[in-house]
Amino acid sequence: MSKKVYNFGAGPAMLPIPVMEQIQREYLDYNNMGVSVVEISHRSKEFDKLLGETDELFRELVALPKNYKILYMHGGAQMQFSAVPMNILGLKPAKKAIYIESGNFAKVAHQEASRYGEIEILASSKETNFDRIPDFDPSDINPEASYFYITSNNTVMGTRWNKIPQTGEVPLVADATSEILSRKLDFSQFGLIFAGTQKNLGPSGLAMTIIREDLLGKAMSETPKLLNYQQCEKDHSLTNTPNTFAIYVIRLVLEWLKGKGGVEAIEKINIQKSNILYDLIDKTSFYLGHSQPEHRSTMNVTFNLANGDLLETFLKEALAEGFYALKGHRAVGGARASIYNAMPIEGVQALADFMKHFEQKNG
Amino acid sequence: MSKKVYNFGAGPAMLPIPVMEQIQREYLDYNNMGVSVVEISHRSKEFDKLLGETDELFRELVALPKNYKILYMHGGAQMQFSAVPMNILGLKPAKKAIYIESGNFAKVAHQEASRYGEIEILASSKETNFDRIPDFDPSDINPEASYFYITSNNTVMGTRWNKIPQTGEVPLVADATSEILSRKLDFSQFGLIFAGTQKNLGPSGLAMTIIREDLLGKAMSETPKLLNYQQCEKDHSLTNTPNTFAIYVIRLVLEWLKGKGGVEAIEKINIQKSNILYDLIDKTSFYLGHSQPEHRSTMNVTFNLANGDLLETFLKEALAEGFYALKGHRAVGGARASIYNAMPIEGVQALADFMKHFEQKNG
Repeated sequence: MSKKVYNFGAGPAMLPIPVMEQIQREYLDYNNMGVSVVEISHRSKEFDKLLGETDELFRELVALPKNYKILYMHGGAQMQFSAVPMNILGLKPAKKAIYIESGNFAKVAHQEASRYGEIEILASSKETNFDRIPDFDPSDINPEASYFYITSNNTVMGTRWNKIPQTGEVPLVADATSEILSRKLDFSQFGLIFAGTQKNLGPSGLAMTIIREDLLGKAMSETPKLLNYQQCEKDHSLTNTPNTFAIYVIRLVLEWLKGKGGVEAIEKINIQKSNILYDLIDKTSFYLGHSQPEHRSTMNVTFNLANGDLLETFLKEALAEGFYALKGHRAVGGARASIYNAMPIEGVQALADFMKHFEQKNG
Repeated sequence: MSKKVYNFGAGPAMLPIPVMEQIQREYLDYNNMGVSVVEISHRSKEFDKLLGETDELFRELVALPKNYKILYMHGGAQMQFSAVPMNILGLKPAKKAIYIESGNFAKVAHQEASRYGEIEILASSKETNFDRIPDFDPSDINPEASYFYITSNNTVMGTRWNKIPQTGEVPLVADATSEILSRKLDFSQFGLIFAGTQKNLGPSGLAMTIIREDLLGKAMSETPKLLNYQQCEKDHSLTNTPNTFAIYVIRLVLEWLKGKGGVEAIEKINIQKSNILYDLIDKTSFYLGHSQPEHRSTMNVTFNLANGDLLETFLKEALAEGFYALKGHRAVGGARASIYNAMPIEGVQALADFMKHFEQKNG
């Protein structure tokens, strides 16, 4: 390494160091085959084993009920913004769905779904620049809706659904891209959960979609073959060549997470990590948190400096000290520390120390 | 390395050794940033530079005319089987297209396109198990067709369009997955060329699509946002997070190819390489080539043993000698040596020596 760097990027994000080192070590020779894992067929017995182990590890880590299927799909989360409506809007004849607008990606997902049916926004926190998860009255849920859609963690805004909504008979669909495997979730509350892989799972270009099997088989006829959940399930995600490198890395990340004690253990660490930053923000008027305390994310901590003029200096000095990619998204401004599973507590502590020091100098 | 291996896999395929070594070397620290290339934002200035350089290298290597756009799209070639009709069937009101059935992937592409419009198979070589490129009368091309589709190299069958067909005013579309950058092609003959990346370009999970700009803007309304060529062009392939690792590797592969003297130089080597195997096959009755001589591919050499009972022993002994992944596709049987750009001539010579030796022992 040229220097010690803590990477707070929102995604593609840092991956666990032992995983990265293993990838480097075995990059030219996977499994004593004399070839790289990126050079073997997705239909080889070695890749079949790797894929099966990835499934098993994921199932074990989230205690996935048997009636849920795991799909590895091209294109990341945004391809799922199209795939979800194409596959499950047809679950009920009205072809309607309900979306909660809790941030940027929820907006984009809603726009994309509107291409395929009548999509209602039941609640939005747009008026407060998405600083909270919007509230709604459960009795307002239209039972004719094929599904109810949330972004369970809002990467840009730094908010999270800390209470998973009850949607009754309407299947709950969640984009969990920036929080998957960060906290214990009861998957049986969801009809479908998907996550782009480039935050808590591996490199970019892929999504994992976890679907309750009774939601399969209702895709509209225009659905591209590779976006069809039933096809993907039938072919064990090998309808064509998947992003084999990403799947290989995911397997290593899951193994690493298991070694750390699994999801419950990492959840405790994630709470500790985010509390270090939120406590600092709450104790001063120098830094201002963006998200409302009861809706805070443990993965993305968004804040600004009360004196906005100092932001540029803050980001510049942070970078010089090895705190990489702290700039906030333009929709919120300010700074953002993305502290996914792979970020060690030492990195967060070092950032907090830097922030305190910066405040002392400039406060 | 555990042992010297030559990888003849059809894809994901071997990549140039110097490229693989560079990836390993800089895997933990890209560009002295202290983080990996897979851990940086697709919106960072470093990735922007990388993407721009990839474009420029590709343009230079194929002498791409200015009115063609380069798109990096999720999902590999088969996602393009859907994207092509969704984007360009609407070029003409009849929503018709013409496909030539020259092998397995042409069949799958035709099936997928049929979801979206009226697709004619103008010619097929199915009856001879795709041992040749089928012939057709150019006067039979329906001028109402929005496009004319070929698979320019048939990976499974080992055949290639050695003469690019003249399709007049009907734009020619080619799936060049298993031959892109292997021979000099005049891109201005094509309306659109696409290639899954996992053979001559890089790792899997991505496709490059090269499109003449006047074909943009006619996508059907059901086209998922990430499959829309115009959207992709507008966003410089960054509508969402692309497969950043694949793009990084492609850039290195293009640079390697430029260092080898470019496409013309590699074409000469590819002819030499394939001739080593075809000459051997033609001089004996022990091995039987699958493809007709005038339609042979320089990338995929398909053959069987006259005594089919020996095939299993052949493949087993080959593997023991370090010749990996020589088994043919089930649609053809026999053996297949995929000898993409990255395969050195020494590998092909070593295989030919093994084949001669095997014949001496068993002939």
